[in-house]
Amino acid sequence: MKNLSPLQKARYQYTPKLPGMLRNGIAEICVKEGLPTESVADQEKIKALFPNTYGEKEITFEKGKNTSLAKKQVVGVILSGGQAPGGHNVICGLYDALKATDKNNVLLGFKNGPSGLLDDDYIEFTDEYINEYRNTGGFDIIGSGRTKLETKEQFKVAAEVAKKHGITAIVIIGGDDSNTNAAVLAEYFAANNTGVQVIGCPKTIDGDLKNEDIECSFGFDTATKTYSEVIGNIERDANSAKKYWHFVKVMGRSASHVALECALETQPNICLISEEVAAKKMSLSQIADYIADSVAARAAKGMNFGVAIIPEGVVEFVPEFSVLIAEINELLAGAKADAFNALATWKEKYEFIKKGLTAASFAVFDILPETIQQQLFLERDPHGNVQVSLIESEKLFSALVKAKLAERKKAGTYNGKFNALHHFFGYEGRCAFPSNFDADYCYSLGYNAFMLIQYGFNGYLSKVSNLSRPAEEWVAGGMPITKMMNMERRHGEDKPVIKKALVELDGAPFKYFEARRATWAVETAYTYPGAIQYFGPSEVCDRTTVTLALEKGMLK
Amino acid sequence: MKNLSPLQKARYQYTPKLPGMLRNGIAEICVKEGLPTESVADQEKIKALFPNTYGEKEITFEKGKNTSLAKKQVVGVILSGGQAPGGHNVICGLYDALKATDKNNVLLGFKNGPSGLLDDDYIEFTDEYINEYRNTGGFDIIGSGRTKLETKEQFKVAAEVAKKHGITAIVIIGGDDSNTNAAVLAEYFAANNTGVQVIGCPKTIDGDLKNEDIECSFGFDTATKTYSEVIGNIERDANSAKKYWHFVKVMGRSASHVALECALETQPNICLISEEVAAKKMSLSQIADYIADSVAARAAKGMNFGVAIIPEGVVEFVPEFSVLIAEINELLAGAKADAFNALATWKEKYEFIKKGLTAASFAVFDILPETIQQQLFLERDPHGNVQVSLIESEKLFSALVKAKLAERKKAGTYNGKFNALHHFFGYEGRCAFPSNFDADYCYSLGYNAFMLIQYGFNGYLSKVSNLSRPAEEWVAGGMPITKMMNMERRHGEDKPVIKKALVELDGAPFKYFEARRATWAVETAYTYPGAIQYFGPSEVCDRTTVTLALEKGMLK
Repeated sequence: MKNLSPLQKARYQYTPKLPGMLRNGIAEICVKEGLPTESVADQEKIKALFPNTYGEKEITFEKGKNTSLAKKQVVGVILSGGQAPGGHNVICGLYDALKATDKNNVLLGFKNGPSGLLDDDYIEFTDEYINEYRNTGGFDIIGSGRTKLETKEQFKVAAEVAKKHGITAIVIIGGDDSNTNAAVLAEYFAANNTGVQVIGCPKTIDGDLKNEDIECSFGFDTATKTYSEVIGNIERDANSAKKYWHFVKVMGRSASHVALECALETQPNICLISEEVAAKKMSLSQIADYIADSVAARAAKGMNFGVAIIPEGVVEFVPEFSVLIAEINELLAGAKADAFNALATWKEKYEFIKKGLTAASFAVFDILPETIQQQLFLERDPHGNVQVSLIESEKLFSALVKAKLAERKKAGTYNGKFNALHHFFGYEGRCAFPSNFDADYCYSLGYNAFMLIQYGFNGYLSKVSNLSRPAEEWVAGGMPITKMMNMERRHGEDKPVIKKALVELDGAPFKYFEARRATWAVETAYTYPGAIQYFGPSEVCDRTTVTLALEKGMLK
Repeated sequence: MKNLSPLQKARYQYTPKLPGMLRNGIAEICVKEGLPTESVADQEKIKALFPNTYGEKEITFEKGKNTSLAKKQVVGVILSGGQAPGGHNVICGLYDALKATDKNNVLLGFKNGPSGLLDDDYIEFTDEYINEYRNTGGFDIIGSGRTKLETKEQFKVAAEVAKKHGITAIVIIGGDDSNTNAAVLAEYFAANNTGVQVIGCPKTIDGDLKNEDIECSFGFDTATKTYSEVIGNIERDANSAKKYWHFVKVMGRSASHVALECALETQPNICLISEEVAAKKMSLSQIADYIADSVAARAAKGMNFGVAIIPEGVVEFVPEFSVLIAEINELLAGAKADAFNALATWKEKYEFIKKGLTAASFAVFDILPETIQQQLFLERDPHGNVQVSLIESEKLFSALVKAKLAERKKAGTYNGKFNALHHFFGYEGRCAFPSNFDADYCYSLGYNAFMLIQYGFNGYLSKVSNLSRPAEEWVAGGMPITKMMNMERRHGEDKPVIKKALVELDGAPFKYFEARRATWAVETAYTYPGAIQYFGPSEVCDRTTVTLALEKGMLK
């Protein structure tokens, strides 16, 4: 028997808020067509690759007579990639709209990600089953997976499975890669007259799947609130004990939206932004000096404590570090690794490395702490490449800062104490109970996805916008996925992909941070957000991210 | 300018709940005397050491005419040791009772722990100052510190500082060590006729300062709820992605109350209890096999994922490991370390170690992963001793389990996949906004501490009991600190100290866990508590720990 927590029971009672225009009942939802769309870049190439789905119109739903055709819908839904809070509610919204339209409609959930579709491994949702997952976190309702749907062979299998079950549409809940694949699958289904539609839903805690239509991906709100809760607690601990510098790594390999939002929420002394590191071509030494400046300035005021936020992927954005990694991969490629592996001691290996790297890369290698040096050479993936994702960048930077401070102490420019502690937050936030915002947004995305299906759209992303306003004012509709696409080089080939939305250095969130960070670096300007609240005053429990508020000009 | 979070502003509006008997106003609080007390053990010795404060009566407050003498009170308060949520509310309750009694009374806060008293470094509290800290986490109101007040010289300085300010009482908010020192200071003040009283308040997230009077220490509720929130999120992530075993270390070096409470809240697959490890004299290999059994049983059912909770101090409870540590300390004591340090490579050092340890200890050493082996020998404290607290026991056990599984795979008894991730939660929970329970409990402890002062008690712990019932039914009073004391060997001397309350293996919380853990080890019985709620349904936001509910028989 399941032992449900009191919060889980209470959250079952929560009714997610739909956009106003979807609140009048299924019979009162009609389509308003917008303008035809173009891809964000490489229009001709994208158009050529998506002849059946390119250039479609944006659409909005509004109150009016439902003119969609009566047709039994059998919809398949897939959760793809990393967990994000609210995924369950997307499925609940989809299910409710589908059943409200016709109780004979069927929703199938393919298990453990896209592979469930290929393996024809699924469950059929019922009220009883789905009610257990309303307003809960996680993707455990059907599981998730990272199989990529991208080959013709896979599409053929998908079409056969769809035909077998009489599937009329597939909803893919995923990030940029999964939605890229959704667009390609939609084109395949259209080109082959399968009659199966594909609708995507924008999921990722990383926050890098967005444009002027898709204001944010779901899960970003809840995940960043969870990380900000514990970062705020750590700040308060630092400011109470007054003896540690905490280096906090947060998830986000490609984009630093998570780090930036956490910084806006908690006002730490330091927050690195990978996009800035890349744009300024910063070296490890420069970054370490930047942090050491804050440590020294605070120490001079008697404050030997602080908090620094480090985005997970930052080292990959340091140009000299990328060169080093490439050289190591080359140095140990294939059979060349044998000579290295034959060496008995780290000392001998170190000499081998010294001889094998360029002087510039060896200099970079040489400032790394020994544990990181060893990690680079000893823990390689099955292809012999360095596993950059395993690098503990929070420990790397604290070690570099420590070395900088030792130099400064020698030079007489620093006379403080430096004790570092390390944290990494990622898995802690991906499956939290969705905030009211994510619960509402996700339910709306799912509900809306069914309306897109019902009206016959294919290759669209479910779109709910005007999100910085109360849900009543949200705008529901759809955007052709190809609008977000451009051509990028992947594995030596030009591929049509959704353009990742990185942190824009001239965007409002970064500008806001940039204007304040010099003060935060020296003062103790911590803000303590506390735990996500699901009940209570609206300003506490319905507030979305600072990032969105700044992007929408709701905060200056 | 401070940037306050919406939750912080909302929490300022919260009015902590007092025990019913303290709700009638200061003029309506009288003392009911209970029986004289005895120490928990070594009565004669403790009595001899505390001639002026031993054997005093327990007392309870009740509704009735306040008969305390009118006298200007100048009270000093100290936060001692590690942070615990609710410390600010103890001070707020103390302040409010003190000012409600006489607005000319003064509350001084000594800064950064007991050293503030010795250095005469303090602030005087005002409404404006204190209001900023109501219902907030952290000890940043005056800072905390770990200086121990234990020598006669320190007591003399304390008496002088007290005299200088006309201090009538000192309130020490701390754990078992700090309250031991409070008792000794109280005895000193009484023996020297200083007229200064000492009152303690039971603080520690570890939960190991309790007896039949002191039902729990403050902060335990909030800290365990914070850890349980993120552990539950990780469980849900594990059950969604279905590919990782998460090894989660939680704070608690001496006692495993935190680990046990988190397990009761989240129902993980595995939770080690240090007290059980010690009682059963378990070896590292036995523990690893115990965990590996769960991994294998789950793998056999297709579930290559799980969650294991590891109490921070568990390795210190493994008898063979303690012997190993003692041998290492001996092996490298004093000048003997020079020979070891002179060796150039780890290989040479390893041979040195092999020769220096007993065969039994070397066998234990030899099953450790190399990173832990190196840590034991390379990172020693200024006295040359192994820094046991730095050992990453979550990584130690996952490495041992991995080795066990490799053996089983070879033997054909296991055929799963094992990928481990590691987490450590401690600093994340010590400064969270106090739960409603801790906000109420702490405010009551502080309010009650002032009533003990006003009635002239010395060497008492502020006591609020009947905590598993609504606050209205709580019972306020005081307990002589000596009641908790016994004699223990410390640094080669017999010392009177508060007896730590370890997890009792025949207590209701452990028994409840023990009856269920075999099921949890194999099934996925996770419970997801979610974030602490401060508003909303009472069953969600006023609920205290499962540990207390079980101890009080409120849950079977």
